[in-house]
Amino acid sequence: MNVVTAIRGGPRAGDREAVLRIVRSSGFFTDAEQQVALELVDERMGKGDASGYRFLFAVIGDETDPVGYACFGPIAGTRSSFDLYWIAVDAAQRGRGVGTALMDAVIREAGAAGATRLYAETSSREQYEPTRRFYESRGFARAALLPDFYAPGDGKLIYWLALESESGQRTSR
Amino acid sequence: MNVVTAIRGGPRAGDREAVLRIVRSSGFFTDAEQQVALELVDERMGKGDASGYRFLFAVIGDETDPVGYACFGPIAGTRSSFDLYWIAVDAAQRGRGVGTALMDAVIREAGAAGATRLYAETSSREQYEPTRRFYESRGFARAALLPDFYAPGDGKLIYWLALESESGQRTSR
Repeated sequence: MNVVTAIRGGPRAGDREAVLRIVRSSGFFTDAEQQVALELVDERMGKGDASGYRFLFAVIGDETDPVGYACFGPIAGTRSSFDLYWIAVDAAQRGRGVGTALMDAVIREAGAAGATRLYAETSSREQYEPTRRFYESRGFARAALLPDFYAPGDGKLIYWLALESESGQRTSR
Repeated sequence: MNVVTAIRGGPRAGDREAVLRIVRSSGFFTDAEQQVALELVDERMGKGDASGYRFLFAVIGDETDPVGYACFGPIAGTRSSFDLYWIAVDAAQRGRGVGTALMDAVIREAGAAGATRLYAETSSREQYEPTRRFYESRGFARAALLPDFYAPGDGKLIYWLALESESGQRTSR
């Protein structure tokens, strides 16, 4: 059942702990990967827009703690390609439309910031099948598979979505 | 004609200026891209191995100034994939085997450092045709093409080469 999900900017005080809780909840991410998630929060808090990282947080109803977040930003050296570095929802809150609300907000804000292409990378491993289905259901197409990239049997999938710069609406591919 | 090319580590004093001269000499790289090249040198000089960047410099005969260099290192989040961030030879020294000597050294050192896969990215634009031929002649295969990644009409090509960890010898793909 979808619930009322508000999307807000950030990170604010307390969001660093929320990010850690959210990325831990899946059980997918190693300690090193969790540290990377926190480093992006710290970069953003320390450098603001100059960090290149933009964050969006999803809050349910009138709760204050976020239950999901996304981190995205322009890819250096490209004219208008953006990377979706993280999108994660607390495992206890799955299936309530939080991820979809976050993705819609990312698409809107990236488009408004001038992005024409949004890239997302994920693993080819079995446990990421729901992640892959999520991207595909939001209109992402597979651009590439790099077999064994992360480790033997663990390839990298690169997805992309065409954005309409300014309006943030998707174009047909 | 190939000349005697020595490969050494670094960067040493003066190599920062050499890197700028080398990347400028092609006329390909924007000011922003040149800055990225220098930032990697600075990261390496400031943090050493912890930077994740390894450098090799090519010196001809008994000259002291390098005429080419390569920067490579492990890709975070992967078990044994390495990225070849830069490989560049002074435009005035092309065709003398400097690039090949550098690449052979990168393959050897990355393999010795435990790399099993070496990735290199380049542009699909016409002017990078010699770059693509160079990678292909060294045994790299195209893993992916992301059209319009850098800009409209300027796609990203991802190349990869299988390495034999420890021995540094290439395996058949």
